[in-house]
Amino acid sequence: MKQKVTPRILSGFMELVPEEQIIFDRMKDIIAQTYESFGFVNLDTPVLELSEILLAKAGGETEKQIYRFSKGDTDMCMRFDLTVPLSRYVAQHQNELAFPFRRYQIAKSYRGERPQRGRFREFYQADIDIIGSENLSVLYDAEIPSIMYRVLTKLGLKRFHIRMNNRKLLQGFYEEIGLTEQSADILRVIDKMDKIGEDNVRLCLFDLGLKADKIDQVLRFAQTKGTIQSVLDQLEALNIANTTYQTGLQELKTVTSALNNLGVPESNFVIDLRITRGLDYYTGTVYETFADDFPNWGSICSGGRYDNLAAYYTDRKLPGVGMSIGLTRFFDVLKAQDLLNKGSKTPASVLVIPMSGAESGAGLRIGNLLRQEGIKVEVYSADTKFKNKMAYANKIGVPYVVILGETEVSESTAVLKDMRKGEQQTLAQDKLAPAIRLLQKSEPILPIIKDC
Amino acid sequence: MKQKVTPRILSGFMELVPEEQIIFDRMKDIIAQTYESFGFVNLDTPVLELSEILLAKAGGETEKQIYRFSKGDTDMCMRFDLTVPLSRYVAQHQNELAFPFRRYQIAKSYRGERPQRGRFREFYQADIDIIGSENLSVLYDAEIPSIMYRVLTKLGLKRFHIRMNNRKLLQGFYEEIGLTEQSADILRVIDKMDKIGEDNVRLCLFDLGLKADKIDQVLRFAQTKGTIQSVLDQLEALNIANTTYQTGLQELKTVTSALNNLGVPESNFVIDLRITRGLDYYTGTVYETFADDFPNWGSICSGGRYDNLAAYYTDRKLPGVGMSIGLTRFFDVLKAQDLLNKGSKTPASVLVIPMSGAESGAGLRIGNLLRQEGIKVEVYSADTKFKNKMAYANKIGVPYVVILGETEVSESTAVLKDMRKGEQQTLAQDKLAPAIRLLQKSEPILPIIKDC
Repeated sequence: MKQKVTPRILSGFMELVPEEQIIFDRMKDIIAQTYESFGFVNLDTPVLELSEILLAKAGGETEKQIYRFSKGDTDMCMRFDLTVPLSRYVAQHQNELAFPFRRYQIAKSYRGERPQRGRFREFYQADIDIIGSENLSVLYDAEIPSIMYRVLTKLGLKRFHIRMNNRKLLQGFYEEIGLTEQSADILRVIDKMDKIGEDNVRLCLFDLGLKADKIDQVLRFAQTKGTIQSVLDQLEALNIANTTYQTGLQELKTVTSALNNLGVPESNFVIDLRITRGLDYYTGTVYETFADDFPNWGSICSGGRYDNLAAYYTDRKLPGVGMSIGLTRFFDVLKAQDLLNKGSKTPASVLVIPMSGAESGAGLRIGNLLRQEGIKVEVYSADTKFKNKMAYANKIGVPYVVILGETEVSESTAVLKDMRKGEQQTLAQDKLAPAIRLLQKSEPILPIIKDC
Repeated sequence: MKQKVTPRILSGFMELVPEEQIIFDRMKDIIAQTYESFGFVNLDTPVLELSEILLAKAGGETEKQIYRFSKGDTDMCMRFDLTVPLSRYVAQHQNELAFPFRRYQIAKSYRGERPQRGRFREFYQADIDIIGSENLSVLYDAEIPSIMYRVLTKLGLKRFHIRMNNRKLLQGFYEEIGLTEQSADILRVIDKMDKIGEDNVRLCLFDLGLKADKIDQVLRFAQTKGTIQSVLDQLEALNIANTTYQTGLQELKTVTSALNNLGVPESNFVIDLRITRGLDYYTGTVYETFADDFPNWGSICSGGRYDNLAAYYTDRKLPGVGMSIGLTRFFDVLKAQDLLNKGSKTPASVLVIPMSGAESGAGLRIGNLLRQEGIKVEVYSADTKFKNKMAYANKIGVPYVVILGETEVSESTAVLKDMRKGEQQTLAQDKLAPAIRLLQKSEPILPIIKDC
């Protein structure tokens, strides 16, 4: 045997140990189940796509980060997000799909970024989008954030706000005050308010050539604050007749009213006129989501409304609205700040331990019996000392152990031990399943995320 | 806008439309849930690994097929199976893991093979392995195929056989008859018996230089047939004293007896002395699995016992046993032969359709109400004719529709329509959930795979 290769993974990649993996999978399941409860269908597009397809739009920083290579005559890339594959899929299958088309995808994408804390080269995103053909009701702009509200709540997050804005409202406002041409630059500056502070925003706006009164006007507008109704009233009171502004305001009213019907409390959403998202893509409602106690996490999930999903692949107009959770990053910050309620290192509820003297098939049969009752069971079949068997049970953190000695096997009984309480009882084998279910009922059900 | 790019995927990649994706996901879920019910923990290793790691062992055909590329100074590959990443993982995390370590992984691997029917460049495998430290009880050699029996049965497959053999038994036999040196070549020929027929096997063995009496002896042994007990009796009756042979025979007895305790019926497993699997890897029990009615599918799941999982990365001896389902390929043959019980194109059980006159929030509220009762609901919010709304319901194949007109909203009622039976009833809104659950109870539950 030649010299050993040191086992390791590429830098910038996340890999988990079992107890972390189990909780990550639970997060993924809760997200998927919530998406499906709203009728979204999963898509599982290939990780590799033709470069011609993936790069039809990309450019700049993104393109430099892409894992691109050739094999034979084929120039291909690993996907760098889930949106471009979605647009290719919808254009390709448009005649087989029913519109509005509702899809989710929870999958890995790849970007060869410079590795740094919280940035991953392989990362999960959990996307939902609703795509219309030719048009799409603005009510869907409310449904999408209401789903994200459910997801985060089910994960156990309590203090968070989904911040909403509307790009038409912004566009109309800047038209009205005669700053249409500079608006893109202005919006990029204002979007950074939380990071750089108001004073620096003023300086940047001054650098852009804005007069003091305009700077005041722009900042007053961007910092409009209050309850949903109060912000809407203030926007109304500006008396801006501009059609685009009025359309945006009307959309904001419709969306906030629908969010109310969808049961999203005002403690979890807010109108924030500072946020913009990608300027070349979104055209109406836009969203960002921040944990109240941890603004430095950045946005947990973001997205918005776009006019045309697949302009590079089809003439058919496909407007849509969607949001995406940066799952790998979110998991990483929760883990780093010890905010995950970790559990055991095994999905099994029960470990069956046959003792050395016991007939070898007995453990296997008990395992089967309990599994037929819907209980997850591992049977420990290694031939070792009892002490080692119990040490293994402790190491994997299994909640219950069933011990089978010679006596128990001959009397068709078993010892059931609650590993957390340290209590044990001897039971007839056919009474094991109900006893375990009873114990399980008294287990506390912890949310994935600790109180925050 | 520049010229459109034709939306398409790379050849040799599988992508599904929603109704196929839903059934594929159900298959994946059943497999994962069954694996977890036996206490296996999921691993999610990176798709990309360092070439130095992935290619520590690979060579020949496999190495040529690998997607390998560099970015910056890093030479990396997309994984070509789930076994090499497992061995790297176990070696890397050996001090954090409890042994025997039970892991499953249901994930995609990549091989740039020449595309042909049934061969994919991106393919799911569903692996389970149990890894011991220094040693591993042969009872685990029975547990693994018993899990595969449960998986296939739960998927709805009935007529299949898991074929088992033992490499020590073969080695001992060839030592006994003085053909140790030629044994690898002989085994490769015999493994092809089903494909090329006995006459061609005889010719090939003759080409290898075997005398007629040895050919007879080899073929008689390889074709030993009968019930488990009868095959074991025949192997015993050969009176071969060779230690390796006796060890192999003893293992076969232990495994078949344990399979009995694990509830696997003889109608689904058989000893087949012809099968061998990878000659440079497996060292004890080996498995293949064939559908009785479709031998040309090849093996649905295969695997075996190996002595040392991670010899390239660590000195620690890590014996293991595992099997793998070729999931993408299996799904593809089932689909090609119309053996999948397809369902709807949406995970939703209910589509809520608000009529044009109805207050716009009513549909959203009903959707929420039903979701709180655990029902999966899509709300149709597009503003279009009723006819189009019902056409959409038909196109996605949703089983139930809830219709809300002006009258229903004002009276807090709704019309519930069973789309399959065409029957409808008007109900109070708070009676909808129980009525839907009642209808759902009478739905036939079809297995994923049609009778075969």
